[in-house]
Amino acid sequence: MSALQIHADDPRDPIQEARRRRDISLAVEPPLPDLPKDLPLNVTSLPRGILTARECEITEKTPEGLVELLANGHFSAVEVIEAFLRRAALAQRLVNCVTELLPQAALKRAKWLDNYYKEHGRTIGPLHGLPISVKEHISLKGWEVNFSFVARIGTIVDTDGLALKAMCDAGAIPFARTTQPQTLMHLETSSTIYGVTTNPYNTMLTPGGSSGGESALIALRGSPLGFGSDTGGSIRVPAGHTGIYGLKPTSTRLSHLGLTGIAGGREQIPSVIGPMSTSIGGLEMLMKTVINSKMWEVDPSLPPIEWRDGVDWLLRGSAGSRKLKVGIMWDDGLVTPHPPVRRAMRETVEKLRKDPDIEIVDWAEFSMKDAYEIWSTLIFADNGEVMLNLLDDGKEELRPLTEWIFKHNPHKAKRSLQEVWDWTAKRDEFRGKFAHAWHKTGAVDSHPIDVLLTPLYIGPPAKLDESKYWNYSLLFNLLDYPGVSFPVTTVDPTLDPIDVDFLHKGDIDLETHKLYKPDWYKDAPISLQLVARRFEDEKVSNDFHISPI
Amino acid sequence: MSALQIHADDPRDPIQEARRRRDISLAVEPPLPDLPKDLPLNVTSLPRGILTARECEITEKTPEGLVELLANGHFSAVEVIEAFLRRAALAQRLVNCVTELLPQAALKRAKWLDNYYKEHGRTIGPLHGLPISVKEHISLKGWEVNFSFVARIGTIVDTDGLALKAMCDAGAIPFARTTQPQTLMHLETSSTIYGVTTNPYNTMLTPGGSSGGESALIALRGSPLGFGSDTGGSIRVPAGHTGIYGLKPTSTRLSHLGLTGIAGGREQIPSVIGPMSTSIGGLEMLMKTVINSKMWEVDPSLPPIEWRDGVDWLLRGSAGSRKLKVGIMWDDGLVTPHPPVRRAMRETVEKLRKDPDIEIVDWAEFSMKDAYEIWSTLIFADNGEVMLNLLDDGKEELRPLTEWIFKHNPHKAKRSLQEVWDWTAKRDEFRGKFAHAWHKTGAVDSHPIDVLLTPLYIGPPAKLDESKYWNYSLLFNLLDYPGVSFPVTTVDPTLDPIDVDFLHKGDIDLETHKLYKPDWYKDAPISLQLVARRFEDEKVSNDFHISPI
Repeated sequence: MSALQIHADDPRDPIQEARRRRDISLAVEPPLPDLPKDLPLNVTSLPRGILTARECEITEKTPEGLVELLANGHFSAVEVIEAFLRRAALAQRLVNCVTELLPQAALKRAKWLDNYYKEHGRTIGPLHGLPISVKEHISLKGWEVNFSFVARIGTIVDTDGLALKAMCDAGAIPFARTTQPQTLMHLETSSTIYGVTTNPYNTMLTPGGSSGGESALIALRGSPLGFGSDTGGSIRVPAGHTGIYGLKPTSTRLSHLGLTGIAGGREQIPSVIGPMSTSIGGLEMLMKTVINSKMWEVDPSLPPIEWRDGVDWLLRGSAGSRKLKVGIMWDDGLVTPHPPVRRAMRETVEKLRKDPDIEIVDWAEFSMKDAYEIWSTLIFADNGEVMLNLLDDGKEELRPLTEWIFKHNPHKAKRSLQEVWDWTAKRDEFRGKFAHAWHKTGAVDSHPIDVLLTPLYIGPPAKLDESKYWNYSLLFNLLDYPGVSFPVTTVDPTLDPIDVDFLHKGDIDLETHKLYKPDWYKDAPISLQLVARRFEDEKVSNDFHISPI
Repeated sequence: MSALQIHADDPRDPIQEARRRRDISLAVEPPLPDLPKDLPLNVTSLPRGILTARECEITEKTPEGLVELLANGHFSAVEVIEAFLRRAALAQRLVNCVTELLPQAALKRAKWLDNYYKEHGRTIGPLHGLPISVKEHISLKGWEVNFSFVARIGTIVDTDGLALKAMCDAGAIPFARTTQPQTLMHLETSSTIYGVTTNPYNTMLTPGGSSGGESALIALRGSPLGFGSDTGGSIRVPAGHTGIYGLKPTSTRLSHLGLTGIAGGREQIPSVIGPMSTSIGGLEMLMKTVINSKMWEVDPSLPPIEWRDGVDWLLRGSAGSRKLKVGIMWDDGLVTPHPPVRRAMRETVEKLRKDPDIEIVDWAEFSMKDAYEIWSTLIFADNGEVMLNLLDDGKEELRPLTEWIFKHNPHKAKRSLQEVWDWTAKRDEFRGKFAHAWHKTGAVDSHPIDVLLTPLYIGPPAKLDESKYWNYSLLFNLLDYPGVSFPVTTVDPTLDPIDVDFLHKGDIDLETHKLYKPDWYKDAPISLQLVARRFEDEKVSNDFHISPI
């Protein structure tokens, strides 16, 4: 890919400089051994052959397990951070997911925490010593934030993201910064500066995007928990493509204060930050820690809603006790998911039906055809100029998906203010209709559905440059509903053959259908999405999660 | 004023038709006697000389008192609604505050409620039989909504405002619709269709606006409780100018679903609906009823925050008990309030200082100079075209304040989308700085201020066409903080002489200073404003209200 190398021969080239900084930060002692020449497509088992048993023991714990073992002194903060620095450095060699590691700062903090623990006999907070990774664009005071734009290399920020700071105040240690795609508007991860990030389960495939550095790193257990961001699926899709968990929260649950923006003042489709983790408990850990720091006292955009982990939504044990009501959206009526996704839906619903405490309701017909148009019109209302100008400033070639979504997108145009007001009103009308349909799933003596189960993405993780159908994830950005992605199965060519009797519903449906070739996707993770109404983030990341079934 | 009469000679004139409908709706039996020829400037005591003692007894109750007496059968719903219909018809003759009454619909509903009460021995809900008034633009299904635009006369709406419907579901009866100014963007109330609404305490003065029909009607006890709306002060200023109570809630506490808009999709400065009443208890009654109907289940723009009337914000009686901390914003640093407003501030603060459970903190210097520019730029970002075109369609002359704010406003301009995004980012920066300043009033071992006491308006209710300085009220629209206006005193020329040593801070300060002439404003109500942080509406309309002191 020439776009990734255009500056390669210039010694003062900012791209080479950024990569050099990354490479220096990756040095570990003792050095990692050379990797075998012919790596398998699935690299997830390689770390176990390279790292020590103790390092694997540490890095394969869930975040909940880690904080417990740090709190009772079983692990020290220093040995935990050292193990993750080594595993992250290895993950970088395997799937190219890191923009830099932060060994000095992280080790210094870990030492301080260990001393505090020794001196006071207790932890500094509930996340004492927990390593966390952070998508590159989420601000860390004193560090460069380039958003993967060549033109922004060297831009140092002077604030910490407030949400990230709340995690640090509770004892967490940021130690790794991760890759994101050009413009952050792809469901895959490749950029001029850092190249292509690949999927640990099959390096011919994408780990998703735009938080694909996080997903690849966490899937390889190079980090237990991290921050991604999501405007159209960018947390959920990469989490889903790599078999980990990801939550896109309701937009005003986590503060964006302290983040550097490149699109300030655009509030029509909210971009959100949120957790990605090896466990669903990790999602809740981040949400609870950040929300209960009461950020609404300094960020007036947030409503004062604490994390409600004590609420018994089903009134269990009381006279009003009821079943968990799960709506099923089999597809969006426009583009049929690939066979393994349909199997994942069927198998999950079959399991749910066997639970006597769960009631299943098919989601009624609802026209989703406007969703992409409204979302896309509002997102690209400046005709993509801010992003395209930044690319031009950096003399970057457009990646194929940048070309596709910024140039060939039928809904991108330079809009007038009045047009954006009109489309915002259409957005509100769409939101109102969807909320009405949700509410209608209940009746006088029955509760509306608690959660909605949907496909997350049209198929398995795609090959590079092929992730073009966003509707299943962006629908919930348009609605601003919280959604979790959770792993269900992997592609099995025997169980998931091509649908030979496929009847397409339109051109995009046919084009998407043709992308599926079972053998290409063997072992690729297949995940689904669980959604709740606005502000009911707790329902999908705690009480009601159905992933362990 | 010729603008109010341009169509007077045309029998098919829509204005005459609208007034005819209004006048027919005002007929009461037995008819009201003719009014004396020379009415005093202060007409507030006239109803007692015209209505029966029983009618006065009913109409002079607070909303809390009324629902209690309706619930225990002391009053019937029919006699209550009949008394208010008579008093509202009288108020219309005195101050021209009504666009129409709804005698048939209201009486029919009252009879139904009385029958229900007889049959079941209980009320239908907590507001059983309570009459409520509604600013004209707030939708009532099947009725015309013209927003005071001639061009919209005859426009029938097909939905009820959801918040209004929640009140009706609890037993309230809408019976009166009230006047609003041309474009709804004045702090006074005059329109081509309905003419000028005047202040019951001094009919040479304005009752404020844009909810001036509500304020004048409620001040005359022609309604106990009503819905106004507020984008820059339109609930609080008219409530303040007429000695009643008004609350501008946080923007997403009450639903706007079902309302007809003329500016759909504009979300940069939220317009809100809210309660106006003869008592502060009335404000809480409306808020609690509407919010606890759980509108967030059908309106996804609302966070699920119930009305918190049981919260003991001060932790009274516990070890953590603390004082109520009240910040004092003496002025905005730009334009000095008139002498009676300054006296109201001084007297209120003196009383507060005597309360051992209250701690007073002066609000630190904070630059307010950007507030009007940001608010105004965002509000008039279409150069006022939507409004001005509607006026043109109706062949309306511009009222002087329309001319002033739409034509001579230095911040109105036709903005590009990018400009509005930039100004939205400036709005967020302003909000962030203000929240930080509020937070800073606390320290490690002390709580930030609970509420902020401020002037509400620069002076007493103005003469027509003179209400031009909005900063004290619009500041809290820009911030989206809840604010209550509450009566403190009345103008006393002896206590409130012209400030002869006045040193002005600039042209607007000097111009505003010159407007004050004590004798003109004798007996005019002076009110102040109590503000809380976003979503803490309960703090200013319940627990912490300081008006009764």
